[in-house]
Amino acid sequence: MSNGKFDIVRLHHAEITVTDLDRARHFYCDGLGLIETESDENQIYLRALEDANHHCLVLTKGKQASLKHIAYRVSADSDLDALDELFTELGVKKRWVEAGEEKGQGRALRIQDPGGIPVEFFYEMEKADRMLQKYHLQGNVKIKRIDHANCLITNIDDLYAWYSENLGFRTSEYTVKVDKENNEENIWAAWMHRKPSVHDLALISETGPRFHHTGFWMDDAKSILDACDHLASLGYYANIERSPGRHGTSNAFFVYVRDPDGNRMELYTGDYFTNDPDWEPIKWDLADPQRATFWGAMPPKSWVEEAVPVEDIHTGELLPIVPFRKKEHV
Amino acid sequence: MSNGKFDIVRLHHAEITVTDLDRARHFYCDGLGLIETESDENQIYLRALEDANHHCLVLTKGKQASLKHIAYRVSADSDLDALDELFTELGVKKRWVEAGEEKGQGRALRIQDPGGIPVEFFYEMEKADRMLQKYHLQGNVKIKRIDHANCLITNIDDLYAWYSENLGFRTSEYTVKVDKENNEENIWAAWMHRKPSVHDLALISETGPRFHHTGFWMDDAKSILDACDHLASLGYYANIERSPGRHGTSNAFFVYVRDPDGNRMELYTGDYFTNDPDWEPIKWDLADPQRATFWGAMPPKSWVEEAVPVEDIHTGELLPIVPFRKKEHV
Amino acid sequence: MSNGKFDIVRLHHAEITVTDLDRARHFYCDGLGLIETESDENQIYLRALEDANHHCLVLTKGKQASLKHIAYRVSADSDLDALDELFTELGVKKRWVEAGEEKGQGRALRIQDPGGIPVEFFYEMEKADRMLQKYHLQGNVKIKRIDHANCLITNIDDLYAWYSENLGFRTSEYTVKVDKENNEENIWAAWMHRKPSVHDLALISETGPRFHHTGFWMDDAKSILDACDHLASLGYYANIERSPGRHGTSNAFFVYVRDPDGNRMELYTGDYFTNDPDWEPIKWDLADPQRATFWGAMPPKSWVEEAVPVEDIHTGELLPIVPFRKKEHV
Amino acid sequence: MSNGKFDIVRLHHAEITVTDLDRARHFYCDGLGLIETESDENQIYLRALEDANHHCLVLTKGKQASLKHIAYRVSADSDLDALDELFTELGVKKRWVEAGEEKGQGRALRIQDPGGIPVEFFYEMEKADRMLQKYHLQGNVKIKRIDHANCLITNIDDLYAWYSENLGFRTSEYTVKVDKENNEENIWAAWMHRKPSVHDLALISETGPRFHHTGFWMDDAKSILDACDHLASLGYYANIERSPGRHGTSNAFFVYVRDPDGNRMELYTGDYFTNDPDWEPIKWDLADPQRATFWGAMPPKSWVEEAVPVEDIHTGELLPIVPFRKKEHV
Repeated sequence: MSNGKFDIVRLHHAEITVTDLDRARHFYCDGLGLIETESDENQIYLRALEDANHHCLVLTKGKQASLKHIAYRVSADSDLDALDELFTELGVKKRWVEAGEEKGQGRALRIQDPGGIPVEFFYEMEKADRMLQKYHLQGNVKIKRIDHANCLITNIDDLYAWYSENLGFRTSEYTVKVDKENNEENIWAAWMHRKPSVHDLALISETGPRFHHTGFWMDDAKSILDACDHLASLGYYANIERSPGRHGTSNAFFVYVRDPDGNRMELYTGDYFTNDPDWEPIKWDLADPQRATFWGAMPPKSWVEEAVPVEDIHTGELLPIVPFRKKEHV
Repeated sequence: MSNGKFDIVRLHHAEITVTDLDRARHFYCDGLGLIETESDENQIYLRALEDANHHCLVLTKGKQASLKHIAYRVSADSDLDALDELFTELGVKKRWVEAGEEKGQGRALRIQDPGGIPVEFFYEMEKADRMLQKYHLQGNVKIKRIDHANCLITNIDDLYAWYSENLGFRTSEYTVKVDKENNEENIWAAWMHRKPSVHDLALISETGPRFHHTGFWMDDAKSILDACDHLASLGYYANIERSPGRHGTSNAFFVYVRDPDGNRMELYTGDYFTNDPDWEPIKWDLADPQRATFWGAMPPKSWVEEAVPVEDIHTGELLPIVPFRKKEHV
Repeated sequence: MSNGKFDIVRLHHAEITVTDLDRARHFYCDGLGLIETESDENQIYLRALEDANHHCLVLTKGKQASLKHIAYRVSADSDLDALDELFTELGVKKRWVEAGEEKGQGRALRIQDPGGIPVEFFYEMEKADRMLQKYHLQGNVKIKRIDHANCLITNIDDLYAWYSENLGFRTSEYTVKVDKENNEENIWAAWMHRKPSVHDLALISETGPRFHHTGFWMDDAKSILDACDHLASLGYYANIERSPGRHGTSNAFFVYVRDPDGNRMELYTGDYFTNDPDWEPIKWDLADPQRATFWGAMPPKSWVEEAVPVEDIHTGELLPIVPFRKKEHV
Repeated sequence: MSNGKFDIVRLHHAEITVTDLDRARHFYCDGLGLIETESDENQIYLRALEDANHHCLVLTKGKQASLKHIAYRVSADSDLDALDELFTELGVKKRWVEAGEEKGQGRALRIQDPGGIPVEFFYEMEKADRMLQKYHLQGNVKIKRIDHANCLITNIDDLYAWYSENLGFRTSEYTVKVDKENNEENIWAAWMHRKPSVHDLALISETGPRFHHTGFWMDDAKSILDACDHLASLGYYANIERSPGRHGTSNAFFVYVRDPDGNRMELYTGDYFTNDPDWEPIKWDLADPQRATFWGAMPPKSWVEEAVPVEDIHTGELLPIVPFRKKEHV
């Protein structure tokens, strides 16, 4: 499951920007039922019901919705050094994050991946009280854990190869754009994983780099509907951006919600085991009407067009967004 | 629950027109899991899993999607005579349907209600095998029974009074259009019932008379989602017209599907007991964003605009459709 | 649905005895999610999520678990006078309960039915805030309304006829004990209703008069499982007396819980419409292994053997319990 | 996740003995909805809805219910050689199974583990049609994949160390027997995994070696209840041995069913991600009343006492069963 020098376990958390921490707390805690582990005047650290560690989502005060970083957990502290070496070799933009810079977390290596996404690798994190079997302390919205990150990028061919070859990501499903004139297929999106689920990372060819959503696992479809009831009566009915349906790709039953700043979360359930060694990635044609929507309403324009910018890991500036261009046909 | 002379029990079945019986059979039986009790070259009689009688839906071959009639069951054969008297008195257009004209059914009284909807009253119907506890013979879509009829009409004030005063219908919820200029509220829609659920009959102010949908009861939200999975993989994903959501009015969790001719069915669950004598009908403002959609995608244009015409009970011709006009403010 | 003189709408509430109000409050409010409408040092008045009235369950401080009364709601105040006349005629033990004696309630007529069960009839009750669509204020256990009362009595033949003939109760299902030697069937239990569900009242032939349980409606099986999770983690795992299963009779999916004093509640879902005029009551053989348990664990001994005594409506004393005896075969 | 020489992916299938193939086919295919990939007069090869390979369960004709082997899939063909070397070194009883001896499968290495359980390792298996999104072809019982094997053994200390140290199994949860007199804790059971779920393998201290059950994954609790309805109406109500409940250990919602020969299957859902590198195995006290049954009925005697014997990988004879003895306290 790795090159033997390091082992990336799974997508572990995301850090996003919100403009008003109290408003965000109401949405994420009262609304989505995430648990506040720690906070100060600039940040709120949240965990989900199954989490035994400090955080799976960090809200940081900022000027607009954006992605500060997504983070993968590795299986040993020394993996970080192996990754550092690899990134040096590959010429990837990177920096070390000191232990404690992100609360509850040990040292971390942060990079800008070749698609522009700010990605962190870390090993150590403080323990936190696990709520899984404390059912009576859970609210109506029962998010169990983070599941995946969905990123919009402009260089899918390169990035797909980069994650596959350098970091040991596998592919569960992918989408191709069929060019009948030139009799060729071009990869348009890929669902890639380290943990044996459909994905830790989805790469989608769009104007980018942008961050589309963070996916959270819920146990079943009924739990996702319960979440909608709770959010709607709490006043967040307009925040339910894309209503329940099933994706063709991933087979997930889903709902998408947006926080008051526009950061998007997917409530997600229903995928499958993907680590059999002879797994043949499922190919979808971009033109297949059941690809993105096996059934359900067409996504609203906002879902298709809007996503948040991502940060430069050195300057904290938002990266410029460039249109997706299909690789030149030579 | 009645004037003492008759007692209307509940909405019992609907007869609709389809252009191709085999195609319709595939949709309603293979798709929706309804059970064929009897059929010939012109009609298919269907029942649901809980039904102990011959039919809750009749498909009749015709030139286009339309409503031939909806039918209420009464509690005694003599109720039909009492209703006949009443309709004579009220000057309502009516005719007797002989026993057996509709298969499996005794004599029936059919009227054109003052809104133009073709409505039947009957008492006697043949028994049929009840499938409720034969779980292993049920398919993936488990419709339990018919629930309600949703009609678009142009004279809500008159019709609302007519059903309340003459036929003993109660109102669970209603919608008003608020006219701030004239400081008045006008009723726009009403959910009326004989059985103690939210409705047997919904009356909506729209261009009419038209028939919007037949509602079917399912046990829970998960069963409705299972129905979507089944329909989508069977090829009917485009027939799922309005994807899952919750109505404010009625509190129902719903999905709307359309048969290949465009007749619309609601898969419906989640209402409540409505027969307490001091029940105060719930009032909704037409402008309330959570009225029709407590949460969920906005309905597609087709759902808002399209409905099927209804038949003249004497000629079988489709009634002309007239635009809804608000009662003149004198 | 009545003799024309009165109309019993449905089972509306129950009053039971608990020995410690605070302990009971924790069980019913924190545990079962019922809402406290009003209380004093002797009583707690509770309602369920769908209730628009003052109470569906009253907890009264007493020396041991017992039933003080079950109550049916009638459709008009004058129905109470008609019932009073009827009971005088029938020689039934009765007394008037003054408005306000039971908080939030108008005048009521209380009787000891011929089986010994204390039964109340009332029309008027104060309104209360309805929580049905306030999802965000609901807890993990979502009881929607009271559904039925299950009583153990010793004279089923008489009592079954009494409720059918005098009070207009219908029968949805019943159980017979087959006596092959004498080639006869004797009714052993009956599920009787006024509202068109499986039952408002179940009569079971056992040592009696005793009260077995109050049934509460929940929307679906998943909600009942959620209730188990909540109760178990709150410390009430031993109060889940009979674990989830499906009854043959009624087709209900159920769980039974007992409060700290031993009063038993059924969390219940899954019945069906029962008011068609030609409904033929479903007959079960007492010896059918799927009668009481369509599937699921056999009930524990406590469920089979234990039930609480009932009060004398005049003295408040607990009625003596006599063994059930099969009607003599003459 | 391994010693670097081989990588065990997950529990992949089990081969069990049944006495009557047609009767077994009815139970597993008509009852449990598993799909027959291939069969002959001695065997039936079954797969689940999510499987893209030939089988996850093999039924082989024999004289009584028993376990022939459980099988783990490895991530490369060369892993088998590495395992062979390891087992030679460890002195483990083993034999090679030629490609095709088990239909659809490449060469495999079969061992008798130090607890007596017959265990196979293989890499290659034929592809089969995956039914996951063919919802309309699925029946009422929707088993997605195999999840785990539950084995009763007499030498937990040794075996736990053996799987941990030699094969890279991790532990998600374990149970200890507390000996207060001697102030010590002895491990009594362990839930061990290769895939990042609660377990691929449960080791329980009982008279052994015996095989308690094969666990199958279902998507949610409602699907498990649907399975009960289907099995019960098909006539298998008595085969539902242990009715729905939640385990403390694993947090699983479960039902246990037994085939007509007595082989036991668990329908299982609700576990969690277990591969974070700092996961601290959850410890349960054997005396904790919520350990095995977080809530639900106590297991029946048969569930506690009965399990099937296992085969000698060389002779095919059933291994003698010896009572569990606690390690001597020296």
